Amino acid sequence: MPSEIQQESEPALERFVFFTDAVFAIAITLLALEIKVPVLAPSADEATWERALIDLAPSFFAFVLSFLVIGSIWVAHHAVFRLVARFNDRLIVPNLLLLMAVVLLPFSSALLGGTIPRPAPYAFYSATLLAAGLAKAWVTHLALRPEFVAAGVSPAEVVRARRQSWLLPTAAAICLGLAFVAPSWNNLGMLLLAPARRLPMFRGAHRGL
Amino acid sequence: MPSEIQQESEPALERFVFFTDAVFAIAITLLALEIKVPVLAPSADEATWERALIDLAPSFFAFVLSFLVIGSIWVAHHAVFRLVARFNDRLIVPNLLLLMAVVLLPFSSALLGGTIPRPAPYAFYSATLLAAGLAKAWVTHLALRPEFVAAGVSPAEVVRARRQSWLLPTAAAICLGLAFVAPSWNNLGMLLLAPARRLPMFRGAHRGL
Amino acid sequence: MPSEIQQESEPALERFVFFTDAVFAIAITLLALEIKVPVLAPSADEATWERALIDLAPSFFAFVLSFLVIGSIWVAHHAVFRLVARFNDRLIVPNLLLLMAVVLLPFSSALLGGTIPRPAPYAFYSATLLAAGLAKAWVTHLALRPEFVAAGVSPAEVVRARRQSWLLPTAAAICLGLAFVAPSWNNLGMLLLAPARRLPMFRGAHRGL
Amino acid sequence: MPSEIQQESEPALERFVFFTDAVFAIAITLLALEIKVPVLAPSADEATWERALIDLAPSFFAFVLSFLVIGSIWVAHHAVFRLVARFNDRLIVPNLLLLMAVVLLPFSSALLGGTIPRPAPYAFYSATLLAAGLAKAWVTHLALRPEFVAAGVSPAEVVRARRQSWLLPTAAAICLGLAFVAPSWNNLGMLLLAPARRLPMFRGAHRGL
Repeated sequence: MPSEIQQESEPALERFVFFTDAVFAIAITLLALEIKVPVLAPSADEATWERALIDLAPSFFAFVLSFLVIGSIWVAHHAVFRLVARFNDRLIVPNLLLLMAVVLLPFSSALLGGTIPRPAPYAFYSATLLAAGLAKAWVTHLALRPEFVAAGVSPAEVVRARRQSWLLPTAAAICLGLAFVAPSWNNLGMLLLAPARRLPMFRGAHRGL
Repeated sequence: MPSEIQQESEPALERFVFFTDAVFAIAITLLALEIKVPVLAPSADEATWERALIDLAPSFFAFVLSFLVIGSIWVAHHAVFRLVARFNDRLIVPNLLLLMAVVLLPFSSALLGGTIPRPAPYAFYSATLLAAGLAKAWVTHLALRPEFVAAGVSPAEVVRARRQSWLLPTAAAICLGLAFVAPSWNNLGMLLLAPARRLPMFRGAHRGL
Repeated sequence: MPSEIQQESEPALERFVFFTDAVFAIAITLLALEIKVPVLAPSADEATWERALIDLAPSFFAFVLSFLVIGSIWVAHHAVFRLVARFNDRLIVPNLLLLMAVVLLPFSSALLGGTIPRPAPYAFYSATLLAAGLAKAWVTHLALRPEFVAAGVSPAEVVRARRQSWLLPTAAAICLGLAFVAPSWNNLGMLLLAPARRLPMFRGAHRGL
Repeated sequence: MPSEIQQESEPALERFVFFTDAVFAIAITLLALEIKVPVLAPSADEATWERALIDLAPSFFAFVLSFLVIGSIWVAHHAVFRLVARFNDRLIVPNLLLLMAVVLLPFSSALLGGTIPRPAPYAFYSATLLAAGLAKAWVTHLALRPEFVAAGVSPAEVVRARRQSWLLPTAAAICLGLAFVAPSWNNLGMLLLAPARRLPMFRGAHRGL
């Protein structure tokens, strides 16, 4: 490959990655805005405060889960683009779709935190994760085409990163199914990710989803 | 051109582009905050949840349209500044006006998502797009002056980028007219953008608006 | 000056400037969140919509004024740090105070947009501008000490940048006084900035405040 | 150490630091959103406005305290990573935990600003600070392992930075205890930080917590 292509592309790749990171950072921070501050009388007593904070438990659960998901997607994006030296315009549309799903997560997370288990809001949450996962797998696939991979990256690393990109959409699809048949167990599908990432076929690629 | 000008200007250009990107990233993420989370009793039943989510359809439509518009403007800004090597202070004011319009889009998008077709809110939305489009065309015009263009960029690329910068304001002006005479068809003007970008006179410049 | 100091300081200066820019970008974008979307019945008629939008005029005025102020402070910060090559820890505290005032502007701007002329909210707005202006003058003063200025910057440029940094706090102090004696004329003090910047003693420094 | 490791790691370290900075910048800006704009009739009189602003005093106190805490944590993170030349994946998880606590601070700060002294909300605030402080100490510990420290950094600097990282969690633990036994004195624990940082064992490391 001619070296001038590589040099010309670097600022474009950097700006693309920067914009992506900024959107991730904002979405992950906005998650906390969806934990609604209890509106109590300024002189509310201690028992009222304790109950108000305990009642927020589902919101905290949704916050922590969504924070870990966005964090993991960011780590995975980070890990994929560490293998990449060149940039291609065809990445822009799938990456915008990924960002659209990530940007919806604070909304979906607020649904999850504001209800007892019900198919509609739980499925909406899992569908957002599924959309993010599929878009991320698409971005990974396009970004790791041989002509973009940086010099010195082994083919095995590329294969593992591609394989790993299917973990999140698979888990999200399981969660989506569970939302309809057993909403109380909906997000258990995400727990499969931790052991799955330890399987030999994925091991060593990177820490993200 | 003397090379020391180019080197001195690079950090200034970088900071200018960075600030612009950050504002784009925040505005695109805030769009999702305008999809209001339904406030239901925690024990609301499935049918109530389904109806609440379906009732949000206009908000989702406004979110997706505005996300694509901001995304496209960012891509176009990105594409123009890939052709540029030097920075000029005269870009600052038109770029701030572009950002002012972009920053208003979450507000305008919330208007669009919260009403049945009515001239006032629909025209406000299209007017925001028109303002953004005109400011972007102005920025493009100033940024692509011959003395700022990077070495190795062909004049044809510059001409196409300039031409393409008129697509968004033209489409937005059509939408604005439609908002007054036929608000139900208001945003169809935006659909003209996809085939227009394929005309030979625009083809090949870049993927943005 | 030893060259290794300069090289060691560059990433620190970059990170400092980046953090500052990000806070500016977020604060300028949050301004638009303070223009409250009218909550109307989905079937509200055209006349209701027109009145609701016209009633937002004070909010739009506050948005545009505050956007231009934050934009100008950013431009001025940008212009000062273009003259600077080295970074000093003593800049951190005044810069955080500047950011604290900038971050308060969306709140102060919402006060301004939500009231007819009254001393308390108008003075609060001007006091926020005054605090931002004084902190910016302090940052400018510390940043432009001879030992930090980049090679090749003329002493006249430094003098003009220092002088110009007093324009915003002076105008804001006038506005603050007007808020108490004639709140309706409060923000006219800001209009003095445009002609003042054209005086020979300030001319040529940069475009910011 | 082989120089190619250092060069390969730099963009990864930069992206990691950038993402962290963006989250800090957003969280510090969102703090101001928790100062609720008084909702008064547009024609409310001056006395009503004065009282409304004075009633916000606890919110302003919470804003200033939280702004200084996030600012100090950012400065400390900045100071630690100035000593670091290489990046390690093991930093990612503790750094995400630090960001999770930082992102919760606008929520915790709103609790603090919306109540008279009560154990539950005050303890929640201090617990958020404690979590942030412990995560920051963990990040500092991992980041300053000998194999990551930049060439030319003295072992004494590393020791001081490690020691200093315990100041915030210690002060936050004292505040947490006070929240239960004497909530009115809760945040006085933070005031211990200023004299503590002047003790010889911490002096000179850097200005953060």
